[in-house]
Amino acid sequence: MNIILLSGGSGTRLWPISNGTRSKQFIKIFKTDSGDYESMVQRMYRMIKKVSPNANIVIATSESQVASIHNQLGNDVNISLEPCRKDTFPAIALATAYLHDVMGIDENEKVVVCPVDPLVDETYFYSLTKVFELAGNCNLALMGIKPTYPSEKYGYILEKNGTVFFKEKPDKETAEKYISEGALWNGGVFGYRISYLLGLIESLCGASNYEDLLKSYPTLKKISFDYAIAENERNIKIEKYAGRWKDLGTWNTFSEAMSEQFTGNVVLGENCENTHVINELSIPIIVLGLKDSVVAASPDGILVSKKEASSHLKEYAPDSRPMFEQRVWGQYKVLDYQGKEDGEKSLTKELIILPGKNISYQRHSKRKEFWTFVKGNGYLVIDGVIKKVGSGDFVCIDKGQLHSIRAIDELHIIEVQIGSELAEEDIERFDWNWNDEK
Amino acid sequence: MNIILLSGGSGTRLWPISNGTRSKQFIKIFKTDSGDYESMVQRMYRMIKKVSPNANIVIATSESQVASIHNQLGNDVNISLEPCRKDTFPAIALATAYLHDVMGIDENEKVVVCPVDPLVDETYFYSLTKVFELAGNCNLALMGIKPTYPSEKYGYILEKNGTVFFKEKPDKETAEKYISEGALWNGGVFGYRISYLLGLIESLCGASNYEDLLKSYPTLKKISFDYAIAENERNIKIEKYAGRWKDLGTWNTFSEAMSEQFTGNVVLGENCENTHVINELSIPIIVLGLKDSVVAASPDGILVSKKEASSHLKEYAPDSRPMFEQRVWGQYKVLDYQGKEDGEKSLTKELIILPGKNISYQRHSKRKEFWTFVKGNGYLVIDGVIKKVGSGDFVCIDKGQLHSIRAIDELHIIEVQIGSELAEEDIERFDWNWNDEK
Repeated sequence: MNIILLSGGSGTRLWPISNGTRSKQFIKIFKTDSGDYESMVQRMYRMIKKVSPNANIVIATSESQVASIHNQLGNDVNISLEPCRKDTFPAIALATAYLHDVMGIDENEKVVVCPVDPLVDETYFYSLTKVFELAGNCNLALMGIKPTYPSEKYGYILEKNGTVFFKEKPDKETAEKYISEGALWNGGVFGYRISYLLGLIESLCGASNYEDLLKSYPTLKKISFDYAIAENERNIKIEKYAGRWKDLGTWNTFSEAMSEQFTGNVVLGENCENTHVINELSIPIIVLGLKDSVVAASPDGILVSKKEASSHLKEYAPDSRPMFEQRVWGQYKVLDYQGKEDGEKSLTKELIILPGKNISYQRHSKRKEFWTFVKGNGYLVIDGVIKKVGSGDFVCIDKGQLHSIRAIDELHIIEVQIGSELAEEDIERFDWNWNDEK
Repeated sequence: MNIILLSGGSGTRLWPISNGTRSKQFIKIFKTDSGDYESMVQRMYRMIKKVSPNANIVIATSESQVASIHNQLGNDVNISLEPCRKDTFPAIALATAYLHDVMGIDENEKVVVCPVDPLVDETYFYSLTKVFELAGNCNLALMGIKPTYPSEKYGYILEKNGTVFFKEKPDKETAEKYISEGALWNGGVFGYRISYLLGLIESLCGASNYEDLLKSYPTLKKISFDYAIAENERNIKIEKYAGRWKDLGTWNTFSEAMSEQFTGNVVLGENCENTHVINELSIPIIVLGLKDSVVAASPDGILVSKKEASSHLKEYAPDSRPMFEQRVWGQYKVLDYQGKEDGEKSLTKELIILPGKNISYQRHSKRKEFWTFVKGNGYLVIDGVIKKVGSGDFVCIDKGQLHSIRAIDELHIIEVQIGSELAEEDIERFDWNWNDEK
């Protein structure tokens, strides 16, 4: 099987667990048989490998998710990187061209596209393989989800006399009418032959290969796959899926998907009912007497919400800099910030560098950095001089000094930045060849 | 007026805002006319000075509260320091001897004793002055609080044919009977002549002055003033107080006392009802759709509780090391902790040293300390050598190195401790004469 996984947007609807750099699909809420927790993206990847061990998988996503994907799925995963956020058609088009031109999949082969973030049961993955097979007998195969209620948020697929119609977000009464006529929800799962979409890419985007499409990507129109392709196609077949399928877009639905009532350092009093807690801070959370509520804490903030009220979160969530972030080299967490608008400021972070990883060789013009190494070992480079460092060592990196650090084993650093401006932008990157040195 | 303020115990009933080193009376929840917030102890002190501008005030407390008292009331306040926690009789006895022997108040003068932590209105302070006056006409004057409900938690004062009886914690029916007979709550306010108590101290404790009482303090019996003195006294007069009087011992009652619905970095959705939030963390708290609840966050942890369930907190609150603490030199807050039981550990703190204050000249045998100065200026001493330091400077203090720091203006330090054991006990203190140096 060839499969494109769409790993989409970030947002504030699940603040403070999701932020500008972390989307809900990376939050580890599913308990596995081994007792560990896995995220939606990890679960999706594992299940696809289970139903199709030799599947060629490509993940369509943007730069901000690359580090999380590598951290959760390993470094060998194929990523079709969108240079900027468009809608699902450009993303699917780029990933299809990637499959063909970069991964070398024959244009006569089929592919199935699937969003990474619905909550589904195991039978979903067998339905995916059926959509894939069905793509051999039509131009476009779809997965239709059996509706469980007359939702006003979803798209509906109706079939009349062999013709397929798409209806977006009807009101409740119309939705009820559709359902009575056998309509299905549009699950965003599509199957087609690679050659089919390559042809459409050429006519719609004027690009005949991956490189060209990548170059013209910023100029492409923002349009969904439904509008651009599905609604204009007549030769469609539908695979029906009647299992669990949930959009985890609000805390109300997201918390229902949690395997356990809480994760992290949490004490739930016995008088709590239908209450879920996610604690990503190290300090404890005690919850007493709460019903139908969700509590979520991360370095970005703390949410306490009645579940039914959580859909209003978007109006309240702050739009501030992320206080924790995953990077290709590991992750950081902000511990403290001091300073006034126009004076000297300080920012204290904990950095964790993963074994064998390094930050880029860089310098700053407006800040000093003080690094205290608190765990692990690594190689430090300062102005071209390399030395081994480890727990208990310290270095002061002055303004303008070139520096980099590479972890031998997992390396923890307390970093204090002091300067007139502490922006991520105050960074100039240079080349450093680690292999020459060790 | 001479007055003894009893600043009593700490505990977990208001976790995470109170901890082993901070009691509820130091939490700033009352908005003053100037828009600032003051704590119960500040409010009590200010109101006493208002009704009696020349009052001699002594605060009876223990070591763990001295720093908070000085920080909130200044350095000139008189403190009668209990060498260890006993009950109210030994504490009141020591403070009375302090008034006489240390502050030089004549033994024929009267004194009134008053707990620092009930929530009261302004008329309470005028009642205090009346208890003080009343002490001239009897051996023991008491304040009787007009009951508002048949509480099973309080002590009751009954008067029959001129004789006063004390009844502790009756069941509800008995309490109702007492109230119908005109009983009052015992508010823990006592007035007497200094000579009266000094006589009783001599006969009960075998001590005739402050120094002797202080020396024998650890051997004194734990007994309340009610049991030791009031219940054995026949010559009693009672001043009745009918205003507000509330014990702020649980989050339920404590939150009712708050001037505002929240303090700190908090967003309360408009659909919240009867919900109070205290946020002492720098990250935001968003609360949506909650009713009759309390949310409290400090570096020690986060509590989310239905108000009526908050009385069960004691069963759940963790008994861990405080993550923030006020000290005579300022305060600290733990930012991060890393490490295993038997390996090397690291602890990252933010220290704030107040202008003109210093930590003791000290050394550690099991840890190194790394200090990055992030704000302000001060004098640093390492092994007898003094130098000026300020924002942007750094020092590594090795095991066994003697060190101290004194702030010129408010000095902020990020401290990273690394060692095999990071206990407060790993500290050896030495003398250092700051005055010789600057």
